[in-house]
Amino acid sequence: MATGTINKISKSPVNGKEYDIPVTLDDKSGINDFITLHPGKKVVVVQGLGFVGSVMGLVVANALTEEYAVIGIDLPTPASYWKIRSINEGVFPVIASDPKIDIYYQNALKKKNYYATYDPYAYSKADVVVVDINLDVKKITAIDNELQDYSVDLAPFKKAIEAIGNNCKEDVLVLVETTVPPGTAQKIVRPLLEECLSKRGLSADKIKVGHSYERVMPGPKYIDSIQNFYRVFAGTDEKSADAVESFLRTVIRTDEYPLTKLGNTNATEMAKVLENSFRAMNIAFMVEWSRFAEEAGVDIYEVVNAIRMRPTHKNIMLPGLGVGGYCLTKDPLLASWARMNLFGSGEKLGQSEKGVHINDKMPLYAFEYLQSQYTGTLSGKKVLLLGVSYLNDVGDTRYTPVEGFYDHLDLEGCEITLHDPHVKYWEEKDIWVNQDLDDLLNNIYDVIAITTGHKDYRNNAELITKIIQLPACMIYDTIGVLSNKEVRLLSEKHTVKVIGRGDL
Amino acid sequence: MATGTINKISKSPVNGKEYDIPVTLDDKSGINDFITLHPGKKVVVVQGLGFVGSVMGLVVANALTEEYAVIGIDLPTPASYWKIRSINEGVFPVIASDPKIDIYYQNALKKKNYYATYDPYAYSKADVVVVDINLDVKKITAIDNELQDYSVDLAPFKKAIEAIGNNCKEDVLVLVETTVPPGTAQKIVRPLLEECLSKRGLSADKIKVGHSYERVMPGPKYIDSIQNFYRVFAGTDEKSADAVESFLRTVIRTDEYPLTKLGNTNATEMAKVLENSFRAMNIAFMVEWSRFAEEAGVDIYEVVNAIRMRPTHKNIMLPGLGVGGYCLTKDPLLASWARMNLFGSGEKLGQSEKGVHINDKMPLYAFEYLQSQYTGTLSGKKVLLLGVSYLNDVGDTRYTPVEGFYDHLDLEGCEITLHDPHVKYWEEKDIWVNQDLDDLLNNIYDVIAITTGHKDYRNNAELITKIIQLPACMIYDTIGVLSNKEVRLLSEKHTVKVIGRGDL
Repeated sequence: MATGTINKISKSPVNGKEYDIPVTLDDKSGINDFITLHPGKKVVVVQGLGFVGSVMGLVVANALTEEYAVIGIDLPTPASYWKIRSINEGVFPVIASDPKIDIYYQNALKKKNYYATYDPYAYSKADVVVVDINLDVKKITAIDNELQDYSVDLAPFKKAIEAIGNNCKEDVLVLVETTVPPGTAQKIVRPLLEECLSKRGLSADKIKVGHSYERVMPGPKYIDSIQNFYRVFAGTDEKSADAVESFLRTVIRTDEYPLTKLGNTNATEMAKVLENSFRAMNIAFMVEWSRFAEEAGVDIYEVVNAIRMRPTHKNIMLPGLGVGGYCLTKDPLLASWARMNLFGSGEKLGQSEKGVHINDKMPLYAFEYLQSQYTGTLSGKKVLLLGVSYLNDVGDTRYTPVEGFYDHLDLEGCEITLHDPHVKYWEEKDIWVNQDLDDLLNNIYDVIAITTGHKDYRNNAELITKIIQLPACMIYDTIGVLSNKEVRLLSEKHTVKVIGRGDL
Repeated sequence: MATGTINKISKSPVNGKEYDIPVTLDDKSGINDFITLHPGKKVVVVQGLGFVGSVMGLVVANALTEEYAVIGIDLPTPASYWKIRSINEGVFPVIASDPKIDIYYQNALKKKNYYATYDPYAYSKADVVVVDINLDVKKITAIDNELQDYSVDLAPFKKAIEAIGNNCKEDVLVLVETTVPPGTAQKIVRPLLEECLSKRGLSADKIKVGHSYERVMPGPKYIDSIQNFYRVFAGTDEKSADAVESFLRTVIRTDEYPLTKLGNTNATEMAKVLENSFRAMNIAFMVEWSRFAEEAGVDIYEVVNAIRMRPTHKNIMLPGLGVGGYCLTKDPLLASWARMNLFGSGEKLGQSEKGVHINDKMPLYAFEYLQSQYTGTLSGKKVLLLGVSYLNDVGDTRYTPVEGFYDHLDLEGCEITLHDPHVKYWEEKDIWVNQDLDDLLNNIYDVIAITTGHKDYRNNAELITKIIQLPACMIYDTIGVLSNKEVRLLSEKHTVKVIGRGDL
């Protein structure tokens, strides 16, 4: 058993269980035992057990037309080791509202075909390796939320690919699902794998490398967002493309959601970051219109809803507190970086980068808007924030814009109380979040701010009634959740301010 | 009869007929005679007989649940006088592929309920005045297509509103359909009308002023884009809003396309320019990605088509030669101008203005891309342009991006030949356009450039065969009309270049 030094413990946020990380990192026998259980089955190793990988593993373990033996692999670090143990102990490492997650997991437990490990020895057994690790952009941001610089460090990603190359069979299919800088499969992954194979004295010609990005949406349709959704794919050569296609056909309901094959992996990699940049830009575009609406006594929400009646304009978005999540906050930068660094262009993607700049500053605006409602400082004001996650009805706090807003309030000296029905523990801030709104509303606040559009805060007559009973305060809707009627009702007692809704 | 000085003639581009503009401008008896024909009917005057007004008049003359007497009014200028005469002589002043235009016009002729005039006396008879005149942005653009400055001159628009105010009944409904700077109905139209009425000793309280923008698409669904489509409306007060709603219900199929009522006219005016700015920005966003695709050996068209499979991303647009038409090229500027000049904001709509800048420069890029394929000058090169209008399958040349491209080629000394199945005469350039492609392909060209996405150029095997038979030349697709297969076929003999499609 490992010594329990502080760095050697990995704690599950799912059930609070603590695990000692083993000192001797060897799981060959565990892997071999698992393989022995599944003679004749193809082995799929999923690299990375995060929001995508852990569920992708589950979907592959429940593939449609083939029985796979699935091994999930992650690093034996405090942040990840518990996921490995959790999967092997029958506790799925992701909390999600999608009931299919549990059905799929129970089925995999029954079939015993989803094993997890930290040992790269697993790659030696793989017929397919699915790469679902992160590739991060490091943003350097000033106190006013202005993005000052950013960098892309490929080192951890390359190291992960090398771990495959140093262990894999020479004809393995490596399918990259990670959102990568366009050019990565062709210019980085394939050459690296070929180099590793050559060093090992193996043929470098037989390897297959493809790219097919996931469009995972954590939430009530988690599984469907992988299995019942459109996929785009490409190979670094024709053989690779064919192998990717064959594999995806066994996993994804391609009869209903036909696959789209693109000419090369640069194209699929570009498609993914373009999709997300389009959304990010769409939001950034709306920011200045939201300001204009406030100036012109216009309700931007009713305007956008009217515009959305047009089929050609259905996807116009709303601004709000800001943009969060793992993708939209970084993918435009990833693309711009690739254009300059992998393709040697003298130009960045200036418009798309600008979009990130604008979006990053939204939480500051929300703070300043609130500040402008008072003559003095906000210091000492009791503020209740309704919602911590970045997305409606999901407990995902990665890069949530609530963080920027919270930080400004905190720096100003506000007393902040947090509520979120989907977040118990705000990992990034190391703060516990209250989940009992009724209880919270027994207290008195200067400001009640709606910061996430959870169902719990929408069209909730009971909530409105309770808030009306509180002593007069400021109700601050940062995302346009309140209806006109609710604003009217609340205004009888409280001051109500809504971002993007001007007073005429 | 008028003297035939050069300024006093107005020529119809529809049938070539020339009209002397009368010296004595008095059509009272004509108007009175028309009114006498329709006792008891409400009179609707449509101000402006352009692409919107002339057809709006037709739709009102064919209203669904009420019989109106419709008077179209325009100015007795060389540019417009012919439209007045044409309507009264049984020739509709707009050429369109929509068969409903003729059906509606024949019906109006039979009912004799669509009269046209230049005499503001018509306003005195109106129960409703629909304002469909232009409100232009004057752009100052450098030779490199860079937008240097722009201005909005409200004077002609105000003069037109005054013409109504100086003649109208005190309880008339003035429904503005023109795309105006947000704030116009409230801050300009209504005060101006009230002032005129007061000066005439009439009550200024009874007037009704509303705004409801059209979403007219000239083309095969011209009538439907007015009568069978969603409408947004608002009034400058509740009485006005009610009057607008009642009127629209008689004209538009509101059972299938429910009306959307907004809180005030600032909101409806903003919605219109926001819709168009969204489209313009969406295109501008794609410009840099198109460049990136060229650098990365990616086909941006296949990428965008793959992305469009996602319902949330269906409206992502393609770049191309540039952005044309009356709306997308100016509406973001109109909005930005209003923010600063009608609402005193210190900020313009910077992102939206930037979009116009980017889009305006696209034709220059198309020229430079072509130029980069040659070592020497393009001077003396024979260039055939396929398409002159700005929109597929429509003969509308207003602000077509082909103009910028043409100008660069022309300045460089190219010999340019034009083809467009929908454009006989390019009004803005005063050039006749060839319509016989077969005949044109008997000649030899250095460059054949596809500049509009007309059906005639898409999936046209016969056209491809003919082009293959020509001596080797450059086939330059500026908008991604050619399929992969067509590119392959043409490449066997010719050099093929497609904007947004990189060579890997």
